[in-house]
Order: sequence, then C-alpha cells, then structure tokens
Amino acid sequence: MRIFPNIISCVSIICGFFVPFTTSAQGQSARLVDYVDPMIGTAKMGHTFPGATVPFGAVQLSPDTDTIPYAVNGRYNADVYKYCAGYQYDDPTIVGFSHTHFSGTGHADLGDFLLMPTSGELQLNPGTADAPDMGYRSRYSHDNEYAAANYYKVKLDAHDITAELTSSSRVGFHRYTFSKPAESHIILDLMHGIYNYDGKTVWSVARVLNDSTVVGYRQTNGWARTRVVYFAMRFSKPFKNYGSRNFEKDQVYKGFWRKFDQTDNFADLAGSKLRMHFDFDVEAGEQLHVKFALSPVSMDNALVNMEEEVPHWDFDKIKYAGQERWEKELRRIEVKMPTREDYINFYTAMYHAALMPTTYMDVNGDYRGIDHQIHRAEGFTNYTSFSLWDTFRAFHPYLNLVNPSRNADMVQSMMAHYEQNVLGILPIWSHYANENWCMSGYHSVSVIADAIIKGAYTGDANKALDACVATANFRRYEGIGEYIDLGYVPDEKNGTSVSNTLEYAYDDWCIAQLAKYLGQEDIYATFSARAENWRNVFDSSIGFMRPKDTTGKFREKFDALETHGQGFIEGNTWNYSLYVPHNPQGLMELLGGKKRLSAYLDSLFTMYLPDKFFEHTEDITREGIIGNYVHGNEPAHHVVYLYQLTGERWKTHEWVRKILQDQYHNGYDGLGGNDDCGQMSAWYLFSSLGFYPVAPASDEYWLGAPIVESASIHLENGKVFRVEAINQGSKHIYVQEVLLNGEPLKGFTIKHNDIINGGHLQFKMGARPNKNL
Amino acid sequence: MRIFPNIISCVSIICGFFVPFTTSAQGQSARLVDYVDPMIGTAKMGHTFPGATVPFGAVQLSPDTDTIPYAVNGRYNADVYKYCAGYQYDDPTIVGFSHTHFSGTGHADLGDFLLMPTSGELQLNPGTADAPDMGYRSRYSHDNEYAAANYYKVKLDAHDITAELTSSSRVGFHRYTFSKPAESHIILDLMHGIYNYDGKTVWSVARVLNDSTVVGYRQTNGWARTRVVYFAMRFSKPFKNYGSRNFEKDQVYKGFWRKFDQTDNFADLAGSKLRMHFDFDVEAGEQLHVKFALSPVSMDNALVNMEEEVPHWDFDKIKYAGQERWEKELRRIEVKMPTREDYINFYTAMYHAALMPTTYMDVNGDYRGIDHQIHRAEGFTNYTSFSLWDTFRAFHPYLNLVNPSRNADMVQSMMAHYEQNVLGILPIWSHYANENWCMSGYHSVSVIADAIIKGAYTGDANKALDACVATANFRRYEGIGEYIDLGYVPDEKNGTSVSNTLEYAYDDWCIAQLAKYLGQEDIYATFSARAENWRNVFDSSIGFMRPKDTTGKFREKFDALETHGQGFIEGNTWNYSLYVPHNPQGLMELLGGKKRLSAYLDSLFTMYLPDKFFEHTEDITREGIIGNYVHGNEPAHHVVYLYQLTGERWKTHEWVRKILQDQYHNGYDGLGGNDDCGQMSAWYLFSSLGFYPVAPASDEYWLGAPIVESASIHLENGKVFRVEAINQGSKHIYVQEVLLNGEPLKGFTIKHNDIINGGHLQFKMGARPNKNL
Repeated sequence: MRIFPNIISCVSIICGFFVPFTTSAQGQSARLVDYVDPMIGTAKMGHTFPGATVPFGAVQLSPDTDTIPYAVNGRYNADVYKYCAGYQYDDPTIVGFSHTHFSGTGHADLGDFLLMPTSGELQLNPGTADAPDMGYRSRYSHDNEYAAANYYKVKLDAHDITAELTSSSRVGFHRYTFSKPAESHIILDLMHGIYNYDGKTVWSVARVLNDSTVVGYRQTNGWARTRVVYFAMRFSKPFKNYGSRNFEKDQVYKGFWRKFDQTDNFADLAGSKLRMHFDFDVEAGEQLHVKFALSPVSMDNALVNMEEEVPHWDFDKIKYAGQERWEKELRRIEVKMPTREDYINFYTAMYHAALMPTTYMDVNGDYRGIDHQIHRAEGFTNYTSFSLWDTFRAFHPYLNLVNPSRNADMVQSMMAHYEQNVLGILPIWSHYANENWCMSGYHSVSVIADAIIKGAYTGDANKALDACVATANFRRYEGIGEYIDLGYVPDEKNGTSVSNTLEYAYDDWCIAQLAKYLGQEDIYATFSARAENWRNVFDSSIGFMRPKDTTGKFREKFDALETHGQGFIEGNTWNYSLYVPHNPQGLMELLGGKKRLSAYLDSLFTMYLPDKFFEHTEDITREGIIGNYVHGNEPAHHVVYLYQLTGERWKTHEWVRKILQDQYHNGYDGLGGNDDCGQMSAWYLFSSLGFYPVAPASDEYWLGAPIVESASIHLENGKVFRVEAINQGSKHIYVQEVLLNGEPLKGFTIKHNDIINGGHLQFKMGARPNKNL
Repeated sequence: MRIFPNIISCVSIICGFFVPFTTSAQGQSARLVDYVDPMIGTAKMGHTFPGATVPFGAVQLSPDTDTIPYAVNGRYNADVYKYCAGYQYDDPTIVGFSHTHFSGTGHADLGDFLLMPTSGELQLNPGTADAPDMGYRSRYSHDNEYAAANYYKVKLDAHDITAELTSSSRVGFHRYTFSKPAESHIILDLMHGIYNYDGKTVWSVARVLNDSTVVGYRQTNGWARTRVVYFAMRFSKPFKNYGSRNFEKDQVYKGFWRKFDQTDNFADLAGSKLRMHFDFDVEAGEQLHVKFALSPVSMDNALVNMEEEVPHWDFDKIKYAGQERWEKELRRIEVKMPTREDYINFYTAMYHAALMPTTYMDVNGDYRGIDHQIHRAEGFTNYTSFSLWDTFRAFHPYLNLVNPSRNADMVQSMMAHYEQNVLGILPIWSHYANENWCMSGYHSVSVIADAIIKGAYTGDANKALDACVATANFRRYEGIGEYIDLGYVPDEKNGTSVSNTLEYAYDDWCIAQLAKYLGQEDIYATFSARAENWRNVFDSSIGFMRPKDTTGKFREKFDALETHGQGFIEGNTWNYSLYVPHNPQGLMELLGGKKRLSAYLDSLFTMYLPDKFFEHTEDITREGIIGNYVHGNEPAHHVVYLYQLTGERWKTHEWVRKILQDQYHNGYDGLGGNDDCGQMSAWYLFSSLGFYPVAPASDEYWLGAPIVESASIHLENGKVFRVEAINQGSKHIYVQEVLLNGEPLKGFTIKHNDIINGGHLQFKMGARPNKNL
C-alpha cells in the first residue's frame, strides 16, 4: 500500500544513464530460480523479507534485525513500521531467525518462534542494535550474507557462527556451522514478535519431550486478535542441558509453581514471557541442524508435519526440493527480456507474487477456523493472510491466469471463512483465523466473482454469490448501512466516506456480474444499481469525487490535493476520482468527455504537488510519486490504462514504461514501496507482459505496452499463450500495432478466453507514438 | 485440610444438651436424597457449595456471594480464602451463578461463567456487598433460599426474580421466574472467577450463533496454570438485544477492531475482560430458562453435550433425573440411625463424598490432557481435580468399597495424566489438565496401589507400578532427590522436611505392597527399605519426629507444639509423629511400647494447647481441636484408631464417637473444617460404620465403634455387607464384642475380602468399656 522511492535509480534515470546489475549478462540462466533475489525490497519501504520459504509456504524463515516494540507505555511507536517484515537492510544486527513473516505489508504481526544460535556466555535478552553485545543478537555484514529462493545464509559475527536457513512448506530448517570449539546456547525466544508490545504474547507453552525435541505453542493478541501457532522443534544432536526464564514482572499468581526451581532442565513450561536456551558443546567446523515445524492446530500435528515433510537431516536436499518447487512455479511464464536486470526484476516479481496467501493447514488437512474450532480441508488447500484491498486488483487476477487451481483453493478458503464466521461474511483482511478489519471495501467479492467468471473456481457458485451478497449487506462495517440507505457513505459517519463509496460501488458491480453469470436477475438488478453509486459522490462543480453529508451537501472545506482527512484512504481525490474501474466510460462522460479525461490524466502524471500535501500522510513519500500519481498506493493502479479511452494510447505506453522503470529495480532498495503481498509485483508482471485487468470480474484485459521481448505463459490447461514484442527496445516503447493470432486486433482489450485458449499476441513496437492505433 | 469449629454445636455439647434438626423425626424418608442438605458446611470453613450438581458431575452450578480478589496490587488478600467454594452463608448478597466449584478445598480456582438475571437498568459491574445496588448483584434472604441435591432456589430481592438451578453432568440448567413485567438483562460475566485477580482471565471468546445461542471459552492462569473451559449457552426464548463491554483498561493494541462499534449486537467477541448482557422483555410470572453446557475441548463439543444431555426445556425433568442419580448413589449404603439429624449427616456425607473428582470429558469421550492436547477416553470416564494429599486417606478407599468401578476410572484418569505428562509422573494435585503442585507427597501411588490390591482397578498393573516408581523418583519435587540419597529430606533443603519424609515413607510402602502383589521383588525390596525412612527423622531423645539437617544433626531449636516453621505441613510433631500408618507396630516400639503410645495418645486428645501455638497458623482454629488432636488437618485422621494397638480399644470408641459428634452436624455451619473434596466426609462414613482404612494399600480395615444402628452396603458385585450395632445408643458407645458372620472376631481388623464377599459384621454395644475386648 505504501510507497517509497528508489532514490538512486531515480537519480540515474534523471541523469540519463542506467547501470544494469550485470551489464554483460543477457543470456538466460539454466534455472529461472537463479534470477530470484529475495533481497530486493528489503530496504526501507519494500517490506519484503530475505529469508527462506517455498511457494505459498506456511513457514517464512527469515532474519529479524530489530525488536522495536509497537508501543511503549501504551503509546504507539511509529518506527515499528519499518519492521513489518522483521528485516531492514540498513540495520547492523540480527536478533535471530523467526518462522513467520508477511511479505510487503504496511502493517504487521507474526515473527513467531525466534531461534538464535550463540556461543559464549548465556544471554537471554536480545540486547539492542546499539549495544548488541549486551544480548544474544549479533552484528553481521552484508558481505557475509546471501539470499536465494528458499535459502538464506549469514555469518553471525558475535558468535562466529554461520547460519543457513531453508524450508519445506511447514518446516523451517536451520544449519548452524561453528567456527571454533565453544559452548553454544541456542536461544528460543517465545516473547519475540513483529509489531510486538508488552503483553502481546497472551500465553505460551513449551514441553521438552526428550533430549532433542521440544513442542509448544504461542497465543498472541495483535493485529490478529486471537492467534495461536503451535510448534515442534528438533535438534540434530541432543542438548546437554536446557533451561528457561519467565520474564513476567508482575505475575500476581504463580501459585505452587514457585515451590521448586523450574529454570533448569524443567520440561513443562508455560507463561506469557518465556525464553529458553538449549546448550551444546561444539567442535570447530561442527554443524548443528534444527528442524522447526509449525501447525495452526496442535503440537502433535506440528510433529507430524515435521516427520512427513522433513524425515531426514539433509539440509541441501530440502533446500534443493524447495528451489525445484520455485523453478516449477517460475516456469509458468518464460520470458525473453533485454537485460539480466530485467530477468531479475521479472522473476523476483513472480517470486514475490507467490509468497502470500500462505498455506494454513497441516499435512493431514487440519486447520483452525475463524470460529476458533478445528476443521479439516477436504479436497483443497486452506490458505490464510488475505490482504484483499491490495490483492483483488492484479494479484488474484494474475493467479487466475497462471495459477487458477491455486486461486480456486484461495476462494474455497475464503468460503470456509464465510461459512465458519459467526458474522456471516467473507474476509476483509484476514490472517491466521482472524479478521483484522484492515482497509476498506468488501473485495473478497471481486476475487470470487473474477475466479468464477474466469472459470478458475468451480465450487458452489450460488453459495459464493450468497456469501458476496451477505458481505455487501453487512451494515455495521465502515458505513455500509448508510451506503445502502443513501447510495453513498455520508461524510459525517465515516472518515473515508468517498473512497468507501467508490470501492463499494465497484464491489457491487462485481456481485452484479456474478449474479448475471448465474442468471440471478434480481441480484443483478439490485447490485447493478448499487454499482452506479459512485456517481453520488461526484461533485460536478469541481469535477472531483468529494465527501457528502447525510443531507446531500458536499463538504465545504475540501482540498483536492490533500490525502489526509478528506474522505479517502491512502489517496487524494485526484487519484481516487478515477476509481470507477467498472464504468470508465461513464466516468469519462461525467468528467466531461475524452478531452477532459485526457487533460485530467496529463495533469495527474505531470503536475507539481507541493510538499505540504505529504506532511500529514505517512504512507506517501515525495520521490515515489510521478506528478500526483501514486503508484505505491493501489487505488490508481488501473489509471495509466485509462488513456486508452481517450484515444491517446501512446500515453499509456509512455507512462507504463516509466512506472515499470521507476518503481521496480534490482537490489535491496529495488522496490518503490510496500510490495503489498504481491499486488505491486502482479502489476509489474501484467504490465510488463503488455496487458492489465482494469476491472477484475470482467473477462477483459486492457492492453498496454510490454517490456518483455517475448513471453510464453504455460497455462494449467496445457496450452500456451505467447506474447511477442517485435522491435522491443529501451526507446521502442510505443506500440505500433497489435496482432492476436496473426490478425490485427481492434480495440484495446483482449478477452480472458483469448489467453486461456492459447494463442499469440504480438505487439509491434516503435520509437514514436502511433497516434492512429 | 483446614478446620473451623461449629461453635454453637461445641457450646451445646459443653452445656450438656443437644437439639437435633428435627427432634421428632426418626423415621426414614421415602427417598434418601431428601436427607441431603447441601447447605451443610456453607458457613465459615466448610467450603462446600450449596448449588446444583449430579454425582461427580462436570458442572457445579452454584451461587457466588462475593467477588473478592485473590490479590490487590500484587499483594495477597487473605480474605479470599473464605470464597473457596464461592459461597459464604453469612454474606448478604449473591453476585450470580457460576458453573464450576470445588467442594471443601483450602485453596481454589474455577467459578467459570457467572450468569445473573436482573431487571431494570443495565448494570455491567457486580457492585459490592456493601452497595449491591451499584451493580448487578442482589440481596437475598435465607428465608427465600432452598437447597437440595441437584436443586437450588433463591429469590433475588433486587430484581424480584426467583432463580432455580439444576444440572445434568455437563449442563447447568437455570430457571428464572419474573415477578413483574420488566426489561430483564441476563448478565454473562466472563471475568468473574474464584480466587480471581486482575489478569487471571488470560483470554475469553464469545460467539453469538443466533438469537438464543452463544458459545465461547475462557482461559485462566490461576491455581491451574493453563486452564481452558468452553461453553455453549442457550436461552428458551430469543433475546431482543444483546451487547458486551470490554473492561481492559490498558489494552495497547486494539488494532482495527476500534473501527466500528462492537458493544451492541456484535456476534464475534474476544478479550481478557468481557462481560455480556442479553436483554428480554418479560411478563409477570414468566419463566425464562437457560441451558449452559461446558466442555474441556471445544465449543462444538459443548453444544453436543447440551444437545445430548438436555434435549428439551423441562427443568423439572432434569432436576428429577439428577436426583434419581443421587438416590442411586446414596442407596449404595442403607443405614438405620437414631435420629433424623444422623440421617442428614450420613447422607450429606455420602453426597459430599460424591462431588469430586469431577467428570472431565465430553459425551463423546473427548478430553484435554495435561499435554494441552485433545484425547479420547476409550472405555473409561476421565476425571479431574484430584486433591490427593487429602483423599488418598479415606475417600479413595471409600470408593474402592462402595464405588470401585468409578475409582478404577479415576485411577485410569491418573494413568492417562502420567502417560501424557511430559514430566513422566502421576498427579500430585491436579485439576483441569494442570498440575498445581499443591501439598506434598506422591499419594497417587497410595490410591493406585489400594485400587489394584483391592481389585478395583484391573488395568495394566505393571504399567501402574512403573508410574508409581517414576513418581517416587521425581527428584526435583519437595526434596525427593535428597530423600532418596539420605533417607530423609534434610531440614535446610525443604521447609516441611519431616512431614515430607513421613509421607514419602508411607507412599514408598504402598509401592512396595504393589510390587509385592505383582511379584516385582527388586522394587519391593527397594521400596520396602525406603518405607522405613520414617525412622530417620525420629529423635529418640525427645520421642518425636524432628527436622534433621544434611549432616544428620537434629534441629536444635524445636517446638513440639508449634505448627509453623517446624518442618511440617498442616500439623505439629505431636500429630505428625504418629504418621506411620504402614508400620504402627514399629512406631510403637520406637516410641517405647504400648504404655508410651497410650500415654502419647491420651496426652494428644486431652492436653491443653496454649493459644500462642495457633497464632502463626491460619489453618487451625482453637475450637476445632480436641486437646492437641487436629481433625480438620488430615495427617492425624488414623490416630484415633491407634489405641487398638495399646489394648485400650475402648479409648478408640470414646474418641471416635466424640469426633463424629463434634465435627459433623446438621446446618450451614455443620462442618468443623474444609470438607477437603470428600475426605472429611469419607472419614465420617467409615467411622460411623465402625471401621477405617488406617493404611490404604493394605487390605485391612481397623475396627472402631459405629454410630449407625445398622447398615447395608450394596456392593457392585451384587453382594451385601451388613453392619449391625446391637444395643446402639448415645451412651452405648463402647463395643463389647464383635462378630463377623456370627463368629466372634479376634483382633481389631477385618479384611477387604471379608466385606467384598458379603457378610455380616455385628458390634455389641454397651455403656461401659469392655477392657477385655
């Protein structure tokens, strides 16, 4: 959702030259997975994590570089925002390796079960970045750090230990290599977490089953209100000793548990502030392995997950198996691009678009529902962490194209949420069997309608429509009740009344499309009418969407440039007034026609936005904006394609190329903003291929201008859709002509079936606009 | 464990007259259950609860009269002790009706899910006893209160509501009758608890499934460290409205849950400080019913429990069914006694000896293990709440006699605990899938050995022996390691070194008996040796057990009358020095022979104990002691029978009669001390029948002097054991002769088989001692 610029890249573009990652390398690597660079986006606002995971894996085993608390003495600490993924590239220390991470979010949670290998004196506090020696954390150097798909390696300077991480879906696999003989303490911190605060860990349990196996769980109250994660941990050799400390200061009632010492080798632990240590004597060069399995259900299931997925101690085998899964995932699109940097951008985007939602069930299919009860997924994989405000736009449509069966399971997971949810609605932004109510809209309906209309989801479509209707009628949430009654969310009832009205209108259109598809005429009529509610917040006197009160009066004091407090979430009215993806023609007419829309867009991309409009808005920074167009905040993601309506298609070509180049780069600072669970990457993938789903739940894609030279999309039905950009080049950014299956294509859209049936889309590129296109 | 006198009764005895409950009533009631008076022991130190429950039921639905916290600002509040069972007879107000209660404990927990029917203005605070009108609690009068087995009724003055309670095993059933038309708010307080403190409720969840059904759970951290109880609640008519309030003051992170109002009619609640209300319009005379089911496992299981056990709304049917279960339970012993008061004492003792341990599994057999995982009980009923330091003495032996299959299931529950316990030991004092480490000893082994040797438990005896041995070798707990190494617990290592040594020695003897029974000679030899460790703390220079340090030196400064800080728990050395139940002959010899023991016992029962020795001891009060003999603290429970060894059997007869009359009475203040989960009642039952299990795990009972006129024990094997006290009377307290099956009985013991095979035990009573008996 948020955006932050790649300053260096911007400078280099401004200066007119550009140095690719490897200037000489234009040939493809043998393995596509070798193009994946998990370090991309790990600096500043990218909020990606560099650690090890498999596609949509339940475990994301990754270093955390700080433990800054979400709140101190009850007051919010804004710096915590940096640590949404646990890792910040500029940080000098690593606290340890935890097993769950979001990718690219603008708010956070997780960071479960931090493990840290140490040598020397036992330390049970993490220490601070300024004084790492006061704790178990360690300084490290990026020179001694390496990240690849499903593999991460770093040397921990303080302990002279090289840590390597890999994973299967549900098991994190650690390999620690000791440089010198030492007593090593492996720390298991059950208090550690992302967006942590004193009291976030509601409860934790650890049980030491034998001299090398520990199980337990942890319950947190954070972004997810009631989140429980179970674990099973096994060391490759027996510890000689272990212990724990309970850091609860004001524990009123320890009862009879104080009767005897339980800090040393006591197998039955529970509390809200536990840290453990496991002690080993190690030789120089010795390698210690740790398997760490997760489960949403139980300790026993975590053990089974471990035994099923990693029944051996061969680290390299697990690493390789995970990379093979990545390779298979990436092979779904084979591209030819001008530079090695392009390949890295493209396949890292595919990588980032295959991290979330994450698998949320055990190998036996058990999972925890939103109803706090245990269910078994019959015939589908249950997923969690749906950042729907972001991902409905391009990410889920991307899956419908390249990975439809996976998206079908995601829809089924959302339907399970609906069926188990006592509120009787679909997820808004859900993770780990919790609704976190983040952002706005009921965009599940977009994902579901898109998946059904495009044939990806073949479950009970009528039940899905019921779910969509119920969600759209959940009056309590964010002004939906007033929206239904008045046709818009009134200003005085809701702080983001206009963006909500616009998003609801689009969502309603999705429901209408699904109803139409299913022949449900009444629902189609109702929601088609609701879909036009966007008109109710358009103030024709100023030509912008504008907050309106219950009496129908537009807000007097209103600033079209200001993002903060103007009735929108993560955007000003300049960006949001274009948010009618389902009826851009109608919008254009209301705005005043083609010329007016064209001028609007020109202004948006080129205007100078005074600094003061960013002052109150933490989500947008100066350099990440192109004029007044904010790419990092999703609402305008479709906007660049609207030039097609005005007949000035070359302007889409120009600005798409500029966005692709400005906002996506190689290197740790390669992402212009939060990757937002793959949405930003999915925008890149679509746009680089030359088309984009302007309105998911339609079966159309709008054409842009590709930056690939060619691409083959290997569809799940066995067919191949090929994209070719003839005469592609850094200056050949304008599409001269488009051919579909050899025939000139009229209009600026292609149908989903055009792709899914296999075919050949050719863009003839040139250095100058073809104004007759 | 604790004792408090029935002052009025003591006074009346001192004054030489006694007024029975109903002076004229000597005939038996048609139903034995009508003799049960659950109010007995509800005043002062009895710690019984007056509410509704079935034999060993999972639900104990009972009024709580105050909400005094366990700790205020981190400091212990001694007054909380009064509320171990939630109810104190002298209290003027009732806070509400909660669903779980211990019976007669000296420490506490539970009090889950308080329901309170109110009328008038909504109040979500309980108020205080001084100012009940400030909250939802109500004044009440004992004139409007009635308690019977599985039935409790009270009029709530503040609300003009008559509340009636009954239950099935897992379901509490409420009937509220409204006197006048009103808006009624039924309060569900998820923060309420016994031995409560701010923060004890770690988490709670409530989900409103429809207009009359609510499910949820509550996790607490109290005496039980990690305790979770699930519920399902259903009203007999739909509520018109409901709501909740979260009383968390310093909730750092409410995240996006603050986005919209959730206090009113919001179905998905969670937090650590929740109270709910359900609103109804009621007519005069209208009755509202509530079914409230519990589960240790899940909300779904709670619903199933409700539907299986109470599939209708017939309050009286459930009440009657539960009373029928009580009647069946009580019919196991049919007695003839002199007065109606005696019947009430006897059958209320049987009632109190059938409350705990409680059923701890769902109707489908699911239960939560000590390993925090879900298990299914195959072929047995799983029980919880084992107050073993108390109950190994007479309560479990009582079950082996009258209810052996139930005791077998209790042993199997203890074995499941052992198998699921990561510490690999049997329970010490366990409740709700937690070990609370209360008191001392490893008295599970006594219960298990007794149950196997007496043929009650027919499970894997060798595995049971393994469990006993493992528990006896759990070195960490209470000086067991030092005890094994030195033969005693050294004074400087443990505050209750002498009582621990004595109790371990007895427990070791139990293990030896079981090993002998199973032909495990090595274990028999090892534990037979350990069983004689009691000798190691006997100081022959003073003739008492005495703390000894690691070097073998007895503590110099030692007071034989003082209870506090002298190396004993809940007793002074005068009481504890006789605690060698398994080798009283050896003890007598060590003490110096029959005369010395006789003099010791005479002194114990008649000496004057200066007030100062009670000053530091909260557990014993002046009037509850007979001389220096403390009946309310269990360690001396067998002592009155030791006169048999000295040949002065008439002294047993005298003192048994005195204890039975002093410590057990009709009326709310009828119990001299904590009933201790049925142990005090079991002592009464055995002693009133004329015999007592001095050393459980032997197959012998020592004879005393009955107060019944006759009794028929209906054994599970279909046989009947009859006791007859010929010439019984208030002055005929001395046994003149004993006949077993018509033959004069030699010695002062009978065998378990003498009973279990059926038979006839006759005591010929007289007014003067038969010194030749």
